[in-house]
Amino acid sequence: MKNLLDSFEEYLLNNLPNSKSFHPYFEEALSEMLKAGGKRFRPMLLLSVVKSNKSLLLSNSMAVALGLEFLHTYSLIHDDLPSMDNADLRRGFQTLHKKYDEVTAILVGDALNTEAFNLVANASLHNDIKVELIKCLATNGGINGMIIGQAIDCFFENQKLELNQLEYLHIHKTAKLIAASLKMGAIISEYDISTQNRLYDFGIDLGLLFQIQDDIIDETCTSLEAGKTTQNDGAKNSFVNLLGLEGARKSADELSLKCINTLNTFESNLKNSLEELLLKYINRHK
Amino acid sequence: MKNLLDSFEEYLLNNLPNSKSFHPYFEEALSEMLKAGGKRFRPMLLLSVVKSNKSLLLSNSMAVALGLEFLHTYSLIHDDLPSMDNADLRRGFQTLHKKYDEVTAILVGDALNTEAFNLVANASLHNDIKVELIKCLATNGGINGMIIGQAIDCFFENQKLELNQLEYLHIHKTAKLIAASLKMGAIISEYDISTQNRLYDFGIDLGLLFQIQDDIIDETCTSLEAGKTTQNDGAKNSFVNLLGLEGARKSADELSLKCINTLNTFESNLKNSLEELLLKYINRHK
Repeated sequence: MKNLLDSFEEYLLNNLPNSKSFHPYFEEALSEMLKAGGKRFRPMLLLSVVKSNKSLLLSNSMAVALGLEFLHTYSLIHDDLPSMDNADLRRGFQTLHKKYDEVTAILVGDALNTEAFNLVANASLHNDIKVELIKCLATNGGINGMIIGQAIDCFFENQKLELNQLEYLHIHKTAKLIAASLKMGAIISEYDISTQNRLYDFGIDLGLLFQIQDDIIDETCTSLEAGKTTQNDGAKNSFVNLLGLEGARKSADELSLKCINTLNTFESNLKNSLEELLLKYINRHK
Repeated sequence: MKNLLDSFEEYLLNNLPNSKSFHPYFEEALSEMLKAGGKRFRPMLLLSVVKSNKSLLLSNSMAVALGLEFLHTYSLIHDDLPSMDNADLRRGFQTLHKKYDEVTAILVGDALNTEAFNLVANASLHNDIKVELIKCLATNGGINGMIIGQAIDCFFENQKLELNQLEYLHIHKTAKLIAASLKMGAIISEYDISTQNRLYDFGIDLGLLFQIQDDIIDETCTSLEAGKTTQNDGAKNSFVNLLGLEGARKSADELSLKCINTLNTFESNLKNSLEELLLKYINRHK
């Protein structure tokens, strides 16, 4: 059996968005960032949960996992726009507004946002499940999730945030969609509501842990070591700048211990499946 | 009984998107363009179809009608951005990127796009119906609907289109969401598939007719008469520039006759309900 990530990559390449028309490059632009790679972390979270309980539904869950990747990819494309991060590169490729134009970057993002919901609505799953999945995706990827996180990140770029505000930012901008990925796997697997909620809360901790780890890496690594541009300029809203390097390390240690303890409370199949995916991330700052 | 438009306006004002946070104005910006008015044409199409058959479901359909208005409003906000139309005014108010900033305009649009699907998923309707509604909204408002139409409109702004290309543009940019509004009303009303498809096709004709009428108005009226900025510069891709004024009038006459004939094929409740809403538009170029 192919491993889960390979299966997902194959599914993605066979299900890229298409849009035949006489526009010279819009269809090409639609797929560009999806094909550019990335860890596929959100799809893998969902599929790992499904694998633990209802592995028969794995192939039917691919469309939902792809929906998560569409939504995440649209957010990266819009975050990179000139009025936001004004980034030239993403996943090692030129950003869409650099390679094509800003109109294309905005519209490809819009299209992937909408198409994420089309993918979920067309998955071969029960309609009751699909409606719950769509609510979860829209709630965590929308106004009171990812969007308000990004709005706060942009607005307060040059203003100092308090610790609880910085946590609010990253919980909304990143952690909620990670938490939703786990919960959506649990919805497909028909885990009980308590397990769904425990997975969601675990995802919030995980998302926050990753951010603190990123801030530590930004502070301590060169760009070469980190594999991306690092910014340790002292003015940035980061956990390291608020807590100090040692304070941030202590927070990350506490959160990773909490995550490992939570993992141990899940029933063994779920625990094993998530550990296989996550242990290398949970301990990466050490 | 209040009329349908008043009921919808009241529902909208009671269900504006909210996002409590410490961002100084994002929540205000979210509602700004929704409150700014407009004809609410897409919601009214949906509600008029529901009224004709399952008027008991009217109040449960309001969330879906609002979802249509969210999706339409997001598209206006993004169309007005500096890289697209660079418009200062919309519905008589400052555009969001003028009043606030471009980041806010992009993110409010993104949020309304996602929230449209949340509204439909949370409506008090059967899950089977909601899944069909979401497919219809995403298909016609997404990649192979509104988005590719807008991408073509922007890319070919300064290049002459052929007649079939101009039709393709407007069918995708505008007519498909109008057609979807009618079809979504029919899905809620559980009209048979044949009626759903006939309503959809009628919506495509209607959307195209409106565009030809707009082009005629742009050519023949002053801004004061039309109630908006008119552009009759001869270089624009318009039906008048391709067909001449008389040719465009002839096309509009033919399409409005076709629309009226189609209206007459619907069963009497549906016909009456749509006529009440539409006759004034169908004949407005005469």
